[in-house]
Amino acid sequence: MKAIILAAGRGERMNSSLPKPLHKVLGLSLIERVIIPLLKAGIKEIIVVLGYKGEEIENYLKKKFKDKKINFQFVYNNDYEKGNGASFLLALKRLKADEPFLLLMADHIYSPTIIERLLKEKDSFIVVNQNFSLIKDLAEETKVKINNGYLVAIGKDLKDFDGVDGGIFLLRRKDWQLNKKEGELCLIIKEYLKKEKIKPFYLKKDEYVFNINDQESKKWASNYLLNHCGKKEDGIISRNINRKISKLFTQFLINLNCSPLTFTIINFLLTILAAFSFFFSNILGAFLVQLVSIFDGVDGEIARLKLATTKFGAYLDAILDRYGDTIIMLSLAFAHYLKTNQDLIFFWTIWAILGSNISMILKEKEKLLFSYSFTNPLLPPSRDLRLFLIFLFGIFNQLFPLVIFLAIFINLGVLIRLLLVKRFAKED
Amino acid sequence: MKAIILAAGRGERMNSSLPKPLHKVLGLSLIERVIIPLLKAGIKEIIVVLGYKGEEIENYLKKKFKDKKINFQFVYNNDYEKGNGASFLLALKRLKADEPFLLLMADHIYSPTIIERLLKEKDSFIVVNQNFSLIKDLAEETKVKINNGYLVAIGKDLKDFDGVDGGIFLLRRKDWQLNKKEGELCLIIKEYLKKEKIKPFYLKKDEYVFNINDQESKKWASNYLLNHCGKKEDGIISRNINRKISKLFTQFLINLNCSPLTFTIINFLLTILAAFSFFFSNILGAFLVQLVSIFDGVDGEIARLKLATTKFGAYLDAILDRYGDTIIMLSLAFAHYLKTNQDLIFFWTIWAILGSNISMILKEKEKLLFSYSFTNPLLPPSRDLRLFLIFLFGIFNQLFPLVIFLAIFINLGVLIRLLLVKRFAKED
Repeated sequence: MKAIILAAGRGERMNSSLPKPLHKVLGLSLIERVIIPLLKAGIKEIIVVLGYKGEEIENYLKKKFKDKKINFQFVYNNDYEKGNGASFLLALKRLKADEPFLLLMADHIYSPTIIERLLKEKDSFIVVNQNFSLIKDLAEETKVKINNGYLVAIGKDLKDFDGVDGGIFLLRRKDWQLNKKEGELCLIIKEYLKKEKIKPFYLKKDEYVFNINDQESKKWASNYLLNHCGKKEDGIISRNINRKISKLFTQFLINLNCSPLTFTIINFLLTILAAFSFFFSNILGAFLVQLVSIFDGVDGEIARLKLATTKFGAYLDAILDRYGDTIIMLSLAFAHYLKTNQDLIFFWTIWAILGSNISMILKEKEKLLFSYSFTNPLLPPSRDLRLFLIFLFGIFNQLFPLVIFLAIFINLGVLIRLLLVKRFAKED
Repeated sequence: MKAIILAAGRGERMNSSLPKPLHKVLGLSLIERVIIPLLKAGIKEIIVVLGYKGEEIENYLKKKFKDKKINFQFVYNNDYEKGNGASFLLALKRLKADEPFLLLMADHIYSPTIIERLLKEKDSFIVVNQNFSLIKDLAEETKVKINNGYLVAIGKDLKDFDGVDGGIFLLRRKDWQLNKKEGELCLIIKEYLKKEKIKPFYLKKDEYVFNINDQESKKWASNYLLNHCGKKEDGIISRNINRKISKLFTQFLINLNCSPLTFTIINFLLTILAAFSFFFSNILGAFLVQLVSIFDGVDGEIARLKLATTKFGAYLDAILDRYGDTIIMLSLAFAHYLKTNQDLIFFWTIWAILGSNISMILKEKEKLLFSYSFTNPLLPPSRDLRLFLIFLFGIFNQLFPLVIFLAIFINLGVLIRLLLVKRFAKED
């Protein structure tokens, strides 16, 4: 399928000489945020309608995506001041009759999952946002009215409306001619409606669309993304403490031109540093361990925010977390042993390490066997909580009680997991 | 869907007063081996045609499956000496017109996967075995001739044939009448063929069907099942040493009325015994560890042979293997330390344990991320090989070199896994 991206407008309210599609939000330009989800969905034929500083954008895109084998068509609309309707009509001429296509705006930020879901559909659709908490200034938005499952009205000044235009359409070029030749896109959509019906495509929970008009709406979208870049499975410490701090790192580090993997490696080095610092001071070690726990979120946050998550990244992260945890536990046990000569601490430490590794194996096994992973307050503490316990006990110099507590708590958790699975499986 | 099982015959060549369907093969009666796969495929309406010692079989089935909510219909054919064709016709009367049904023989042993696959089909099918290596005595078998994708001839004396009747049919009761009223089933099938076409349903590689006529064919089938109850993922030591011995245990233990879980627990206790025996003698410990490795196969073999594999069983097994390995490694390290005072052995031991746990996590993660698990001679040794190395080094009293070797070998394997995954993922 082909995609049309309208990127001709001046965007003067951005108060910047940079054309709007090239403005960056959390490390990616607006137009990158439109194109990357298309690539992930397998769309490689992209028609970009350019106007204001069009050549600058064309050169930028050619350079940015030069390894991606995208078949770009650049269409120039010199009358871009007269509204994006004409831009759309110009692009439309590049399509074959009866060919379905996506229509997107270069100044909208949207969840990649919308494209994945939309591509499974057959009819004509307009993405409709009914989550008004996402909207900064309703007056700025194009509203839509839905009746009996179809779009019946669209416009900025609609008084009676059901949602807001998400700036993404799945349409089909037909052999008919549209009468309107200029004006805003919604006038053209009204023309289209006279010939074909368009259905609303609603956002799911957790999906978002942002219309970027000015610096404030850019900031608004950026804040939303930053506040929602955690993971669903985040533990209690992650959610309430770590993410709140890690996003400050992320906000800064995302603008460096580094891959998420860089931060995975840096965090592993930091882990080793934290581990060995127990030989000097438990308090220093404890604080560094908590820093590791916080910084551990950065690689994933950057990957998600830059639409750059990879399976290899998740895989490497899992390995380094395991080695990292073990190095921390062994170091603090050894440091304690050197000070106190209590060799029994090794016994408990080994069981704590073993239990947390077994818990990890079981989590994966549960997903494989039952397509489900058990969560329960009684289950072995997740990594964020474990590291937080090391931090807490560490600053009070209670390393021996710490490892006993972890060993018992974690291995008891394995037992509870087993019972939960037994009950869940309901087999003979 | 309903299933018809023909279980009326005398089976006189079994040379036994026990009716043939109740003869046991590896812990399950023949008729259990027919019914259990039906249950697993969700079939709960079963028509059993009985004749010779019919009441004994009826009582047996009612008792055996009393918790299974099977809707049994028992149909008695007093003329069972005249062939199983009449039995089939009697059962047919219990069906509604145009209702599809399965037809099975109580004296055939077959792979459960055949039923799963067959139930996805719409037309009429006869299961056809073309794997002649499964057949003990071709003269005993009913042959089939296939032409243009349809069954065209069936009979014991067929000279020109393409395969052997597998004793399983997917048919459909239609409103027509069949003329034949008695004789062998294949005469009735020939009548059916005049009204409806039947397609061949071929066995896949690793699937089997056995027709049990006498004690020799029972033994033949039993040997086949026993020789094929290993797992595809079996490592080199499992395949070439352990399975050859464990199946001797299995052959004996499967006749005890114990669940596979019992043997999982016994093996864990044996593991603890093996671990602690290192405190007395490395050679004793080494031999017991290898015994654990062998006996570890028994629970799975019994579960597979008794069609009783459960997800919980696999889950529990994974947990106990992890704890078991750790207990063995720690015990032998501690035993060595007590004798030699070399505390460095703990350092290497911990890395060996950690590496093998991480390998387990990664195997599961690979299946989840890539629906694939990497196997490669360079990868960390699987459990069978690890325990075999403990055995080998153990009998030569080389515990310290053992743990160094394991620690390096296993953790190097993790690194190789990482590189393989990186190459496999081909992501940016």
